[in-house]
Amino acid sequence: MKVTVQGRTRHYRTVAFDEGANEVLLIEQRLLPHEFQVVHTRDFRQTAAAIRDMIVRGAGAIGATAAYGLAQGARAFRGRDLGKFAAHLDMVYQTLKDARPTAVDPVNAMDQVRASLSAGQNVPEQQALALAAAEEFAHEDVCHCRAIGRQGARLIRQGMTVLTHCNAGWLAFVDVGSATAPIYAAQTQGKRFQVWCDETRPRSQGATLTAWELAQQGVAHRIIADNAAGHFMQRGQIDLVIVGSDRTLGRTGEVANKIGTYTKAVLAKRHGIPFYVAIPLSTIDWRLRRGFDIPIEERSESEVLGAWGVVQADAPPKRGRASGRPGRRAYVRVANPSSGALNPGFDVTPAELITGIITPAGIFKPGELWARRRELGAHGEHQK
Amino acid sequence: MKVTVQGRTRHYRTVAFDEGANEVLLIEQRLLPHEFQVVHTRDFRQTAAAIRDMIVRGAGAIGATAAYGLAQGARAFRGRDLGKFAAHLDMVYQTLKDARPTAVDPVNAMDQVRASLSAGQNVPEQQALALAAAEEFAHEDVCHCRAIGRQGARLIRQGMTVLTHCNAGWLAFVDVGSATAPIYAAQTQGKRFQVWCDETRPRSQGATLTAWELAQQGVAHRIIADNAAGHFMQRGQIDLVIVGSDRTLGRTGEVANKIGTYTKAVLAKRHGIPFYVAIPLSTIDWRLRRGFDIPIEERSESEVLGAWGVVQADAPPKRGRASGRPGRRAYVRVANPSSGALNPGFDVTPAELITGIITPAGIFKPGELWARRRELGAHGEHQK
Repeated sequence: MKVTVQGRTRHYRTVAFDEGANEVLLIEQRLLPHEFQVVHTRDFRQTAAAIRDMIVRGAGAIGATAAYGLAQGARAFRGRDLGKFAAHLDMVYQTLKDARPTAVDPVNAMDQVRASLSAGQNVPEQQALALAAAEEFAHEDVCHCRAIGRQGARLIRQGMTVLTHCNAGWLAFVDVGSATAPIYAAQTQGKRFQVWCDETRPRSQGATLTAWELAQQGVAHRIIADNAAGHFMQRGQIDLVIVGSDRTLGRTGEVANKIGTYTKAVLAKRHGIPFYVAIPLSTIDWRLRRGFDIPIEERSESEVLGAWGVVQADAPPKRGRASGRPGRRAYVRVANPSSGALNPGFDVTPAELITGIITPAGIFKPGELWARRRELGAHGEHQK
Repeated sequence: MKVTVQGRTRHYRTVAFDEGANEVLLIEQRLLPHEFQVVHTRDFRQTAAAIRDMIVRGAGAIGATAAYGLAQGARAFRGRDLGKFAAHLDMVYQTLKDARPTAVDPVNAMDQVRASLSAGQNVPEQQALALAAAEEFAHEDVCHCRAIGRQGARLIRQGMTVLTHCNAGWLAFVDVGSATAPIYAAQTQGKRFQVWCDETRPRSQGATLTAWELAQQGVAHRIIADNAAGHFMQRGQIDLVIVGSDRTLGRTGEVANKIGTYTKAVLAKRHGIPFYVAIPLSTIDWRLRRGFDIPIEERSESEVLGAWGVVQADAPPKRGRASGRPGRRAYVRVANPSSGALNPGFDVTPAELITGIITPAGIFKPGELWARRRELGAHGEHQK
């Protein structure tokens, strides 16, 4: 997507590969929205570190990063012994997998790359195949997001206000994003509308990443506190909600997504506002039988107890004098120093609250997924 | 209530008066929860500034501060001319009123003080009456909060988890608080339970003030992101919700309170969790006919776009290196620098979502208020 830095506009992907230098190129997401920087990883170990340290995050993005990292590691191998090459690849695979041990996307992506190698007769051929497969994985990710955009754009009509939660944007994928895909597609179609971004405490991905994305693409938008959406819905000021999903149950249509998604779905239902979830097919879990069984990650208390940002010199009035050093990145403790917090990272939204699920293959009611499991790519072994 | 500073525990009121020094004593709320300090205002102009600059906030607290400020101004008058004294008092009254022009509590409190003066025959008598009336106002505020506690304590049972939103605590009143009153009363009765405080973005009064209050009183508590309550309700982990109210409509039972209250009420209703609003009778508006007509204050964007806190040296991992100066108070910009925000300060909760309204005179269903308006103190002129 477009990024304008110091007046110059260029197109970037969240994850890309420089074949000549054998480097993975990643947008440094921890510095956004305050600073835009592209990190070049010089070898697969640096690529693994980038995944581990969350320079890159989001299902599609870390999948592509791992795929490229595996190709990068494969291409760095010097020698002709296919046995030694295979052992080297195993080590690279394990290093990248260990960077985010609970994530399934890097594993799926790397399995796809590794499966492609058998067609190669020697090390150089397998090295070339690894890169081609990684490029193919990234390309597919973009195609899926574009298809979500085509399917979902018709939901956005002229003059609408669209609410979104967290960041299921292009920074979470290779490009375009899932929940943002219909927004970017509708913008390309020339529709005029606005987007309201839930701040999305405690990590504030709506206020930081989604707002930055929308600003870069020139989409009219405002940030609202997570507390404010109910009020605006009550006043008839929100027309449509689109969110992403970390995991969607193919059997029940339940959706696990960033904490607060469930609350927005309950509010939307009460006010008769359409609530859509945009997903690539790879995030559908065809095995799990109950949303209640989805493990909910309990994250660090520090996220709830404070906030990251850039210290401001011109502090807003009426809250006393600020004395932090302006312009510096800082984590501030907001909460009472002796108090603790609870910090569930995700919640589960039941199917009855979801108007539709926007996939690259069409928009479906959550209850329809299971009946369509073959066309939506469920594998036989998951359908017991 | 109790406050422990450097190992020493003392009792404080949010607002108090030093008769000898003719000073109003205020807990400096802008420094909480990071620093505890009591401000002494030397004259009524400093008292007005304390109201304006939000050293003191909350309906009961600013009412009592204005009442004391008027008495303070009256007692500073040198002379015997009752006409000049009356003109001086008008000026003091106006100065204190102008400190928060939209608040009704300072005006109501000062009117009560002023009405008491007619019994005085000369300036010294009227000065003494002004102070007595201000003390009476503060005393009544405490009595009302204690009565709310007595009424509401029976709702809290052993082992419960009680959710509260924002700060309707003793810092918002002279002492005890409204939504916190049943909590402190139940604690005194020896019940064991815990309280979860909504962070309450954008100003975070739950994470700062309510958490500080509860910690000082030794009440078991945790802070949660505003996004998390729905998830915990869904999992059956919240048993009761108690919030305060800025304005309750006597005719309809609708409640205007801090932004996010409505969302919690919708969630509580869905999960069959009792949702109570604790109020002193003075916050009932007997005139307004529709909650929709309550003006909703649009507050500064800066509240949504950033956060106040104390810069930490030991920043949590995985978000890059922090470089602000540790230990300093700072406002950090969290959100994308080029994005704007919408920031409604309050929302309106309809009567159908409210299980009961806890008043000093009993717990009533919202629809019962109007029928009981005489015993609840509605004045004739408001009942047209």
